[in-house]
Formats: sequence, C-alpha cells, structure tokens
Amino acid sequence: MSDKDTQPLTGKDLARKPRGFPDKREGLIHAQAKLVETVTGIYRKWGFEALETGAFEYADALGKFLPDDDRPNAGVFAIQDDDEQWMSLRYDLTAPLARFIAEAGQTVGRPFRRYAAGPVWRNEKPGPGRFREFWQCDADTVGAPGFHADAEMIAMGAEALRAVGMETGEFVIRVNTRRLLNGVLESVGAASADTRLAILRALDKLDRLGASGVADLLGKGRLDDSGDFTKGAGLGDAEVKAVLAFAEAGAKTRAETLANLSKAAGNSEEGKAGLAELEAIAVALEALGAPEGDVVIDPSVVRGLEYYTGPVYEAELLREVTGEDGKTYRIGSIGGGGRYDDLVARFTGETVPATGFSVGISRLASALAIMGETVKLDGPVVVLNLDKDSPAVALEIATMLRRAGLRAEAYMGGSGMKGQMKYADRRGAPAVVMVGSNEIEAGTVTIKDLEMGAMKAKAIQSNEEYREARPGQIEVPRDQMVEAVRRIVEAQG
Amino acid sequence: MSDKDTQPLTGKDLARKPRGFPDKREGLIHAQAKLVETVTGIYRKWGFEALETGAFEYADALGKFLPDDDRPNAGVFAIQDDDEQWMSLRYDLTAPLARFIAEAGQTVGRPFRRYAAGPVWRNEKPGPGRFREFWQCDADTVGAPGFHADAEMIAMGAEALRAVGMETGEFVIRVNTRRLLNGVLESVGAASADTRLAILRALDKLDRLGASGVADLLGKGRLDDSGDFTKGAGLGDAEVKAVLAFAEAGAKTRAETLANLSKAAGNSEEGKAGLAELEAIAVALEALGAPEGDVVIDPSVVRGLEYYTGPVYEAELLREVTGEDGKTYRIGSIGGGGRYDDLVARFTGETVPATGFSVGISRLASALAIMGETVKLDGPVVVLNLDKDSPAVALEIATMLRRAGLRAEAYMGGSGMKGQMKYADRRGAPAVVMVGSNEIEAGTVTIKDLEMGAMKAKAIQSNEEYREARPGQIEVPRDQMVEAVRRIVEAQG
Repeated sequence: MSDKDTQPLTGKDLARKPRGFPDKREGLIHAQAKLVETVTGIYRKWGFEALETGAFEYADALGKFLPDDDRPNAGVFAIQDDDEQWMSLRYDLTAPLARFIAEAGQTVGRPFRRYAAGPVWRNEKPGPGRFREFWQCDADTVGAPGFHADAEMIAMGAEALRAVGMETGEFVIRVNTRRLLNGVLESVGAASADTRLAILRALDKLDRLGASGVADLLGKGRLDDSGDFTKGAGLGDAEVKAVLAFAEAGAKTRAETLANLSKAAGNSEEGKAGLAELEAIAVALEALGAPEGDVVIDPSVVRGLEYYTGPVYEAELLREVTGEDGKTYRIGSIGGGGRYDDLVARFTGETVPATGFSVGISRLASALAIMGETVKLDGPVVVLNLDKDSPAVALEIATMLRRAGLRAEAYMGGSGMKGQMKYADRRGAPAVVMVGSNEIEAGTVTIKDLEMGAMKAKAIQSNEEYREARPGQIEVPRDQMVEAVRRIVEAQG
Repeated sequence: MSDKDTQPLTGKDLARKPRGFPDKREGLIHAQAKLVETVTGIYRKWGFEALETGAFEYADALGKFLPDDDRPNAGVFAIQDDDEQWMSLRYDLTAPLARFIAEAGQTVGRPFRRYAAGPVWRNEKPGPGRFREFWQCDADTVGAPGFHADAEMIAMGAEALRAVGMETGEFVIRVNTRRLLNGVLESVGAASADTRLAILRALDKLDRLGASGVADLLGKGRLDDSGDFTKGAGLGDAEVKAVLAFAEAGAKTRAETLANLSKAAGNSEEGKAGLAELEAIAVALEALGAPEGDVVIDPSVVRGLEYYTGPVYEAELLREVTGEDGKTYRIGSIGGGGRYDDLVARFTGETVPATGFSVGISRLASALAIMGETVKLDGPVVVLNLDKDSPAVALEIATMLRRAGLRAEAYMGGSGMKGQMKYADRRGAPAVVMVGSNEIEAGTVTIKDLEMGAMKAKAIQSNEEYREARPGQIEVPRDQMVEAVRRIVEAQG
C-alpha cells in the first residue's frame, strides 16, 4: 500500500492518536510525578547526581540490545537525519549513558554516579498496560569494579520501592548472575545452543509444572494432560538431578540459598566465579541492611537485555492489584538492572565496569491507577460570572482569593447560573463565590460551601424549602470574603 | 549518497550525539525542574488541571501550523507507523490538546482548563541556544469565548514570570490582535499579498531604522548608507502617515496606547473589532491587577504560529544576560500565546473558542545557565573504602549516615587514598569518613571536614606540618559519628 492509495482523513475521523501513547489525566500525572520525586530522592540520598540525555541518539551509538532485536531498527523508532545518518529514540536510559561516558572521557571523573528520570520509547505491539512510551527512573555507577556496587544498586532499589509505599511481601528483588547459569549449563555438558535453550525454557516452567514436570522436560520429554508431547532437552538422569538441585536451591535466607547453590552449581570455573559474585553481593547486602524478604537470591532469573555481563536483578510486584472493577491484574516486573562492563568498551575499547538499577515508573503508576490510588487534589474555588457584560467583578474576586494564597478561578465559559454551578461541582470546588447586582449594591458577596450544601440538601424535601434554606450559603461583607472562604476550604481539607 | 556508501563508524568515532539534543547536567536539570514546578504551581493556583499527551500524534491530526512549513513534514520529526500512517513528534503542546478535545468530545466538560509541561521537538537547523528538543509549560482554557479569558492568560503569564524571579523591567508581555493589523492594512488599501508583506516587513524595522527610514520603506523605497536601494511598499503619503501613526501608537500605559490606536487604526470593521478586543482585554487586565510595565499593548506584535485567530501575546526577556565569559547574550522570546478558536473545528466542524499561554522553559533555563544562576546542591558525605578486600565497613557507615537522614555514599571506585580524597573534593563532599584498621580496633571513625580542612591547609607551609596538624580532622567513637558529621554538614549549609 503506497501513500497515494490512502484517503486523507477528515473531520471527526482525524481526531485519533497512535496506540501505545496514552493521554494522562490529573490523578495519574500527579501519582507519576510523586513516584519520580520519591525515587530520585532516594537516589540523591545515596549520592547520585542528575544527568539527562536527549530523546534521540544515533542508532549505531545506541546499539542493538533489545530482547527481540533480529530485524534492523526493530523495536525502536528510527528516523534519518538531514545528513542521512539514522537516529533512534532511546529505548532505555542506559545505552545513552554509555555514549555520554565514552564521549566525555575522563572529564567526568570516576566513579560517575548519575540518576535520570524520563520517557523511553519502544516500537513494539501495544496492548493493555503495554505502552510504546513509558517512564523509567535509573541510577548507575560507572567505574565501579566491585560487586558491592551491585549490592548497593539492589539495596537502594529495595529502599526506593519501600519509599513509594511497598511493604514486606508486596515486592521482591531477585538476584542472579549470568555466570552461575553458564556454569551449570557447562557442568551438565549442554554444548549446543538448542540444548541450552531447552534447559532454560524448562527452568522457566518450574512454578507452573513443579519439579517432576520440569524433570521430564529436562530429560526425554513430557506428555501433558491434553495428550500433547513436548520434546525434552535429552539430559541423562544425573544431569537432570543436578539442574533441578540448582533450580530448587532457593531458600528462606540468602545464606541458605548460597549454601544450596554451592552444592548444586557444579565444578566449572564459570560456575565458581558466579557463586563468588553472589557471595560478595550477599555480604554487602548484609552491610547495607537490605531485608531478607525484600531481596532474595534466585538462580532462575534471566534478564532480557543483551548488554548484561554479570549480576542481574529483577524487581517484581507481588502485591495483588485489584481494580475498581473487581478484577485482579498481574503487573509483574517493576524494575531491575545489572552489571554491564562492556557497554562503554563498544566505543573506547577499554572496559569500564558499570552497574545500574531502573525503576519502571509507568508500571508502578499503572498499578496505582488500577487500584484507584492515584493522587486526589483539591479543586479550585470558583467565582461565578453573573454579569456577562462586565466580568471584571468576578476577575477581581478571584484575584483577591489567589493573592491570599487560595486556589481560585473566575468562571470563563458561556453558561448561565445552573451551568456554572454544575461546572463548579465537576471541578470539585470546595466553594463558589457569587456577586450579583444585590451584592454589588450591598458591598457583599455570597459564598456557598458546596460540601456542606450537598449534605444539608439531602435532608430537604421540596424545591421551595431548598430556596428558602439556601443550604451552606452565607452572605458576608466583601472585606471578610477571603477569611470566610479560607475557613470553608480548611474545614474540608 | 546512499546508505551503502557510508562506512560504519567504529570505536571512539561512534560516541557522538545528534546536534540540538544537548546532554544536561545537575545544575541545569534542577534549574529547569524548579522553573517547571514554579510555573505549574502558578497555573494550578489559577485553577488549571494537569493533562499530558504522548510524544507522537498522527501527522494529519497535528496539522501544519509551523511558521516555515512549506515542505511536507518540514519542521517536524515524522515516521511511518506499522500501518503506514505518518506520525510526528509534537512540535508544541497546543495542537495535541486540540486533538484531545475533539476526541474526548463533551466528556471533559467546558470550560476545560489544563496545564502541561514537557518536551516538544522541531526538526530545524540547530544552533547556539537553538535546540531541536526543548521544554514548554502551557496553560489553556478551552470553551472560553470572552476576551477576559485572554486577559487571564496574559496576567497569569506575567505572574508566572515574576514567580521565576523576573522583576519590573526585566521582562515584558506584548499584546496585539491579528484583526487590528488586518484592519490597518485594509484601511490603507493594501490589497495584494506582496504589498501587505512589504508593509509588515517595514514595520518590523521600526526599532532599527526609526520613523523616517520606515516611512521610506512604506513609500517609494529606501537608499541605505552603503548605497543599496530597497524597494518600498508604494503607499501614498497619507497612507504612510496612517501606518506610521498606528505603529507608533505604543505609549506608557495601556489606556494611552488604546487612545492612540483608536485614532490611528482606521475605519474598517476589522480594525474596529480588533480595537474592541484590546479594550476588553485592557479592562480585564486591570481587574486582574496585571502591572502596567509587565503587560503592554504593542500593535507591532505578530506571532508566527498559523493557528491564531485573534489576540496574540509575546513574552520577551529584557534582562541583560551576561555570561561568565563577560559576553552579553540576547535571549529574546521566553513565551507567548494567543487565541485559537478554529483549531478544534478542524476535527469537529464546530468552533470551540480557546486561548492559551506557553512559557519557554528551556529558553529561561538557558538564560539562568548563561548567568551562572543554576541550582547548586550540597555534595554527599563520602565514606572512604580503605580495605578493598572488605568493603563492608564502609557500606555500614554509609548506611548509618543515610538512616540518620544524611546524604552519603561509600566510595565505589578502585583508587587508593589519594584518588578517593580527590573524588570527594570533586563531588563537593562536606566531609569524608575514614575507618582504617586503627579505627576498627579502637571502635572509632576519623572524620575530615573538607571545608575547614581546606581553609586551615592554606596557612600550612610544609608537608610535614600538614601531616602533623591534620587540618579539620577529628576522631570520634563510632556511636558519636552521625552527630559529628551532622554538625559539620549543618555548619557548612
């Protein structure tokens, strides 16, 4: 289909937006801003400083590290610049950092500890809760060779998730290292890529199928209840037992898990090195006071991004997310990270040890939105505009209220009294102020407390009685207006 | 040049970024965040609520309203989606709002008062202070037919600029309306587009050439000092006089300017309607308490964006911006806006009166950066890591400090004592904490006050004396560490 075959849209049909780029309203925006403020606050407290890069990077500088990146430019939004070089919108905040470090060289010093918050873009199939534009909030230490730097990321990540309101058992950060997994695969003689993939896929099903199901998948294969047969990885009995012992090494405490792993991880150099990484991380986590329940060592974790070279961490929301519709939603990953010692070396040839953690702000904000826990803010006091030919009085009253520190607006639309009251209700106004010709003559204003008015109105039977009682309504001299409104606003707050 | 002709970049050459997408460091990021917080704070106080749209819109939904938009997709970053529809990164925050309103229909109610802050993208030639990605912070009232809604935007814009630190005479918001200008052109019989353009260009040079130079350009033409001749607009003497009287109508107060304009604006219906708009705005500005110096009526203002239908406003920074290099920079426009009654009608066919104001956050942040007025923040306390094999002690100390509310980090790099001290200096650390084997044995820590240390060190002559005096350095029991560090940090703050 060429451009010319498409009919240009007109009128109402034009008013549509690309999928995966949602509009955000008041409650969600404030919830997201609060998440960013809280998480960056923790990062700052741990000694990180702000650095932000632009939306676009040259495509070759970003590199191709997305999980399913086998087509050129797949997964990203790419565009050719005037000089025909390809630029891509950043797909995460880590790859641009590596470009910054390579470009800046030694001028920024090492270690360089930075945080950043902002949108990233992925050109993937959008779906429910799956956006093409979403916010991340990252911290990274560049020039940090020790595994205690990884532990710092993990402990800080846990503190950040605590700070945004997660409690014990509502989230977990799972820690693993690529090297340990490689060591196990090596020790059971999984040489071919196919065998390794079959083993990893089998491990991934431990939760669902249990040990015996996974044992079948690791060995000769598995016949499921529907009669379908899945071919196995073809390991012998001893190897199946070894892999299972590894996968089931997880225990209550990090120390117990490490003890199990030291028995199960096999004797390869790679496996031993991986175990040593996790042991160093465990010691540092202890020194950093990271609670056992918040951070676990989990030998089954594999992060998708291709640039990780050692420890990887995955943060998962365990808290049940129930919508106002009563349905339960699975949010899954809310962050993670890992060590990426070779990312800067792509540019400079020199290995620059680095590690980072990323909080999925949009995921967390979605969870809060589903649970109806977005931020609710007070509405403005609305000054009705009862004299269309002379709106100056309403503007003056609104100005007086704002100068006294109150949130206030003069009504700007074209509706009459009824429409203006409806508007004030919709905005969640605590009160409206009215100045008609009677009030102008008397030098007064009429103030209606909308909350008290609504309460009292419930007890009133007839329209007549309502007009008589004027529930929640008072008339005060203009110079007492500000204080009268303030009392109403404060009583409601 | 095709893709295949270009050699792929490797190594250090890869580490570059597209022009016009600057990296931002700590001071600028915090300065910008403070600007956004302050301006949105004012918008909120005036009764606006947050609404944000995505980075991409369909190109046909955005429309082509940029000043120099004669090529297809010129001025914007456009990309074809999977279904071959063109999407563009938003070039401002107003066009996406119109799409939102058209899509939402009556579900959002009217008036709809929203604010938004975020990046916009323009695919223009980048240059000094001219970015391809920059932040705007907008407020809009949709469904507001009265010109007092325009006055509200202007008065609120002035309050926002005051709130970010501008004082009397440091900025000005100039107000005009399209209709007044049209009326003048009509009344002097400027029928052809060429003549109208020649008149507008002549008016634009009033500041530089003065009245007599502009009179030449409006009439037969002008011979400049170098002997070059510029062809004139070809108006007769009476018409030249009329246009000049209009252009020079600006006076000390808004009332005087309006009085001059009522004489100069000619007798066309369009001109009278324009004058009535400005008179209504002036009355409302008075009621809103907008200071005379902050807001002026200026018949020469023409805003570039094509979607304005009535009043237009332009905010200019008058404050002299002198760099730390001693040079003076011209920042120019720092915001503006106008009425755009037909933007929603593109979608719905129905006119939806709307008006808005935009603050150029990146422009303002650039001005602050040039003047060296970005935000300076306190550095973290750095806990030195003196035992590479066992970093746990440094991690524990840093954890104790953070739990007491202090900003602190354990050193994560690979350097020795000297490199670690240099690092602490670079980070602006108020103090470092050291725990060596002596301190571990004694149950103490050594704290060095870096500010006091630097001061005292100035008076010291020799290395020997320095080692003896250990300026600014104290040793305290570990359980008194937090309070000792806090005293140092607070004394420096």
